[in-house]
Amino acid sequence: MSLDWLSAPCIQPATELADAARAHQLQLTKPPGSLGQLEAMAIQLASLQRTAQPAVDRVWISVFAADHGVAEEGVSAFPQVVTGEMVRNFATGGAAISVLARNLDAKLEVVNLGTVNDPGEIPGVRRAIIAPSTANFCVGPAMTEAQLDAALDAGAQSVRAASKASVQLFIGGDMGIANTTSAAALASALLDEPPSSLAGAGTGLNAAGIKHKVSVIERALVLHSTAKSAVEQLRCLGGFEIAALVGAYVAAAQAGIPVLVDGFISTTAAIAAVAIQPEARPWLLFAHRSKEHGHARLLMALQAEPLIDLGLRLGEASGAAIALPLLRLACTLHNGMATFEQAGVSNVD
Amino acid sequence: MSLDWLSAPCIQPATELADAARAHQLQLTKPPGSLGQLEAMAIQLASLQRTAQPAVDRVWISVFAADHGVAEEGVSAFPQVVTGEMVRNFATGGAAISVLARNLDAKLEVVNLGTVNDPGEIPGVRRAIIAPSTANFCVGPAMTEAQLDAALDAGAQSVRAASKASVQLFIGGDMGIANTTSAAALASALLDEPPSSLAGAGTGLNAAGIKHKVSVIERALVLHSTAKSAVEQLRCLGGFEIAALVGAYVAAAQAGIPVLVDGFISTTAAIAAVAIQPEARPWLLFAHRSKEHGHARLLMALQAEPLIDLGLRLGEASGAAIALPLLRLACTLHNGMATFEQAGVSNVD
Repeated sequence: MSLDWLSAPCIQPATELADAARAHQLQLTKPPGSLGQLEAMAIQLASLQRTAQPAVDRVWISVFAADHGVAEEGVSAFPQVVTGEMVRNFATGGAAISVLARNLDAKLEVVNLGTVNDPGEIPGVRRAIIAPSTANFCVGPAMTEAQLDAALDAGAQSVRAASKASVQLFIGGDMGIANTTSAAALASALLDEPPSSLAGAGTGLNAAGIKHKVSVIERALVLHSTAKSAVEQLRCLGGFEIAALVGAYVAAAQAGIPVLVDGFISTTAAIAAVAIQPEARPWLLFAHRSKEHGHARLLMALQAEPLIDLGLRLGEASGAAIALPLLRLACTLHNGMATFEQAGVSNVD
Repeated sequence: MSLDWLSAPCIQPATELADAARAHQLQLTKPPGSLGQLEAMAIQLASLQRTAQPAVDRVWISVFAADHGVAEEGVSAFPQVVTGEMVRNFATGGAAISVLARNLDAKLEVVNLGTVNDPGEIPGVRRAIIAPSTANFCVGPAMTEAQLDAALDAGAQSVRAASKASVQLFIGGDMGIANTTSAAALASALLDEPPSSLAGAGTGLNAAGIKHKVSVIERALVLHSTAKSAVEQLRCLGGFEIAALVGAYVAAAQAGIPVLVDGFISTTAAIAAVAIQPEARPWLLFAHRSKEHGHARLLMALQAEPLIDLGLRLGEASGAAIALPLLRLACTLHNGMATFEQAGVSNVD
């Protein structure tokens, strides 16, 4: 496997610019700390972007779509044909992330990594087909080594394109019927947690459906118990889109592009990325705590404090896009407010 | 007192439009309920605005500034002169709410109801001076009946101007050194809660400062224990800006304009408004859970589920402005997403 690039070093955040941003916040006309987490975000972005004036105006969103062999175990409320149908919906503008990207003036790239129902060539969709789907991981590894390699590289390729476009923030998203099953299985392996604490309703399973999903994951974990490294667990239990997100997150940290992580699938990818390349961690900001059972546990594992908690559970980068205006306002306030001196306002007694 | 207008009826939300919006959400290309609270917000706005296409593009923000007699008890980390200084900062564009209003393309109205340090005539500031400050409510009622009347009317007047501008959402904000003391005292009286569970650090008191603040409020509650109606409690313990917010909230509900409520001070005003005119409740949406101790308790009293929880504690309508993009995206998604039929996407099995 030619995965050496994953262990190449990431850019180091500039602590001196974090310190300067922290000092600047104390001069702005407000009680110290009164903008809470928005202050922390502005300081972190200043440090990552190595600037006194952080900004996330130019944003790149890549949505990676792929099908999952484990869907044949009956673990989703929706039919598998939906993955390919949604690829078209992303491109034609009707999906949530399409509406959001347009409204937020963000670049939306749709990447088809392989769907059982192949929508074919569609303007606005990058075809990077690996296979119609992963293999059913209840039977064998989800991916071959070459497939994992290709999926990771597809994510890195999106980051290279984003970097060429000089974006200030990268957002990754996922689409793939049954991918909460794959993500829960992978997270269980990565964190050594029982599947029952990580598997949830996905697109809308009832209690019996969730129970079945847990038993499917338990079988897979037994089958792949010899997979000990994060890379090997990703290959055995992941999906093409999850691996693409892992590749994108590591590549973004290596390129010095901050990332806003979406929900359950994306956070699983973030855990894998950090396990593979720990230096990626500072580059990952977290958008939201989703309603998917287990997401809170994943965020805890990363000591992540997401911006919003609105009961979202849609995926496709939608939660990150919804949180984006909060990051933008954090920067706008940091850059635009007057200092006590400028405004002639008295400071604390 | 000529406060009869407060009990005039409010506009009734249109339940049939809420039902239609709920049905529309189920047709959009996403798992049902997967946009969480954003779906609930779009449905509520459709019902309030009596439209299939809710929108909060045209937004009016009124920040009411006033000083508090109780400041002489030493209950704030900042000197009283700051209230008047911040009025100027609001108008000249350096304050958080000024930066936010500009960025969000919202109309910002600054209303000076009376400050000890009078900044005089300032372009962009409406002077509606009632007195340099309220009276110290540890000594007597904060306001005379005529002063309460004037403050409530100042808020209603802002709503009349907002209504003339055909806005789709009203946001109120506050500025006034020592006003968390006034709000905590008023909320204690309205909810019959001990001050220790509602008084917090405000702009930055330490533990000893908070203890002193609680004792100040306890003295005031004993002095005004005969004030039993919400109106009378507002007069004895409130501030000009708090009363203006109460008047604005009731007037907005009577005019059929949805309101996005800000933090601790504004939520106290919302509790008073609903106590005075219960029909105002459906018109109040809640922006955030602030870091001010006691705000969570106030939100619970109203069964309010705010949009964000970012550790904000700045006031001046800033938290509501920061949450505004989330409401806007809720509307954009509701109005702009494709249905399963339009997109040719299969629905649940």
